[in-house]
Amino acid sequence: MRQPIRVLILGTGQMGSGIARLVVRRPGLELVGAYGRRAQRAGMDVGPAIGLNQHLGIVLSSNLDAAIERARPDIAIQATCSTLDDALAEITSLVRHGVAVISIAEEMVYPAATSPAQAKQLHSLAIEHGVAVLGAGINPGFVLDLLIIALTGVCTEIESITATRTNDLSPFGSSVLTAQGVGLTPEAFRLALAQGGVVGHYGFAQSIHMIARAVGWDIEGIEETRAPIVARVRRETPFTTVEPGQVAGCHQKAVAYRNGKPVITLIHPQQVHPEVEGVMTGDRIHVRGAPEIVLTTTPEIAGGEGTIALAVNMIPRVLNAPPGSHTMIDLPVPAAVLADARTFVAKARAD
Amino acid sequence: MRQPIRVLILGTGQMGSGIARLVVRRPGLELVGAYGRRAQRAGMDVGPAIGLNQHLGIVLSSNLDAAIERARPDIAIQATCSTLDDALAEITSLVRHGVAVISIAEEMVYPAATSPAQAKQLHSLAIEHGVAVLGAGINPGFVLDLLIIALTGVCTEIESITATRTNDLSPFGSSVLTAQGVGLTPEAFRLALAQGGVVGHYGFAQSIHMIARAVGWDIEGIEETRAPIVARVRRETPFTTVEPGQVAGCHQKAVAYRNGKPVITLIHPQQVHPEVEGVMTGDRIHVRGAPEIVLTTTPEIAGGEGTIALAVNMIPRVLNAPPGSHTMIDLPVPAAVLADARTFVAKARAD
Repeated sequence: MRQPIRVLILGTGQMGSGIARLVVRRPGLELVGAYGRRAQRAGMDVGPAIGLNQHLGIVLSSNLDAAIERARPDIAIQATCSTLDDALAEITSLVRHGVAVISIAEEMVYPAATSPAQAKQLHSLAIEHGVAVLGAGINPGFVLDLLIIALTGVCTEIESITATRTNDLSPFGSSVLTAQGVGLTPEAFRLALAQGGVVGHYGFAQSIHMIARAVGWDIEGIEETRAPIVARVRRETPFTTVEPGQVAGCHQKAVAYRNGKPVITLIHPQQVHPEVEGVMTGDRIHVRGAPEIVLTTTPEIAGGEGTIALAVNMIPRVLNAPPGSHTMIDLPVPAAVLADARTFVAKARAD
Repeated sequence: MRQPIRVLILGTGQMGSGIARLVVRRPGLELVGAYGRRAQRAGMDVGPAIGLNQHLGIVLSSNLDAAIERARPDIAIQATCSTLDDALAEITSLVRHGVAVISIAEEMVYPAATSPAQAKQLHSLAIEHGVAVLGAGINPGFVLDLLIIALTGVCTEIESITATRTNDLSPFGSSVLTAQGVGLTPEAFRLALAQGGVVGHYGFAQSIHMIARAVGWDIEGIEETRAPIVARVRRETPFTTVEPGQVAGCHQKAVAYRNGKPVITLIHPQQVHPEVEGVMTGDRIHVRGAPEIVLTTTPEIAGGEGTIALAVNMIPRVLNAPPGSHTMIDLPVPAAVLADARTFVAKARAD
């Protein structure tokens, strides 16, 4: 059988490490290198760097070009950032080296949402270098877009779509909690929101543009709101304690309009321990159309685990794709890769 | 703008008529012909034949080759039958004329499930004639396979999958009710099952093979059971009355094994008026794995309407696909076609 698929990981935070560990244990994949932005970690063995008890004999690098040249990967998975601007320099280096890319940067899930010009340039660059690029993740990338789009596939008419993802931030560490304003007073939350310290969820614009393109709707505009979820009872996690009257999380909502009417509404309340005030976590999709569809998952599809899985499961899809920058609606539906990953790759690879 | 996509419909029963009516009203599509197997209906105007109040100026034909030559369709939708053997003669004629095909025959959703040799031949023939062929439908084709597969895409490991589709047969006419054994005594049901008069649901083998191929599982065997659902109270529809002690429907189940363990279990109880005995209709998918996923729709995704929508919504996907015989997992995820259908077709067509 041909050689394993050579995978380079970019980023060794919670997501990057989880992805790298899955690559290590999945037959047919080989972790051939790891890049991290923090220079002080460069040189350490990748095993401990991604939370394994074993050394892997490859070192973490903070020089991406050197890492690519040493590792000679078939594909790289980027888990270093959230925005398109931040993601593009690394992706461009990879593409110029002829390396396919899967990015979990939220804005890469639908690059044209924030920058049609950069999206077009990336597509041309990928074609020029003969590799495929994809943005993937649980949200944006799956629950509030791809799953909705699949459901529209069994509809003849659609009046509007409303989807809500209610999740629990309790497992997350301080950077996520800070970004959601957890523990602030409502006044401090509003100030931090205005000043950019509280950002909430990245991805509504990407999800909405993906849905709209998939069904052929022209969207006139998107209204996005973020409001504090104020605790009425004490909520405690290993990382924070929220007293009554303090902010337990961020209730975020986006409404997209077409012909003056709201047609896509995405709602995403994120907070620590919603259950202490009787709020159940879960995903809910309501397609008002013919037929009408109401779908729920209880609890919500796990965010971190789902993103890790999706990034790795899409490897064969990206290697099978024609050159270019793709979104999840351009490729076949994702599926778990539960056998040797090489058996999922149709075309002959260069090696 | 280029000419509308020319669509030929095969079959003017409940499904074929619904598909044809949707083609008539969808911008960018043109119904250019209709074929029906019943010679006594040949020559009538297609409008009344598909339940419209208007004449369409095209006649229903019972000669497929003549219908193809007169209509010169880009694509045909087949809604004449359920089995592969029954479907293949018509599909072969279409492909030899260079016409792309979407079939809602249940066994066409995954032709290799019942006949790998015929599936391979069809694939070669489609390539030879430069057209794409697809089997599609709500079940098999979506609820108990594609939707499950999409969910596995966010899993790193899967132990087993169980999915249940509980629906209501009350809207259906006598041919469906007879096939499910509705109104029989339990003894007559078992006899009709043995003699082939009661067949239940076609499609478990197709769904299981599609799931197994998508995730890379080798299935050792499938056990399928069909049992009568016996009414305890009177159930009445416009087409039948079921007395207590008579059969209200068919409870069908398939279990697929891998390494001696059940890994895929599909359950499909179909009956008239389940609600009178407290049974709620709905679809439920349970993926036991990492992460665990429990998804439900309430009620079930509408079968007839969903199949009609999916058949028409897949037209651009099939016209965009490379030549060959495809399944739903080979093509991009379905989406509602809510704008001019021509805008969804990427490649230049021959016209």
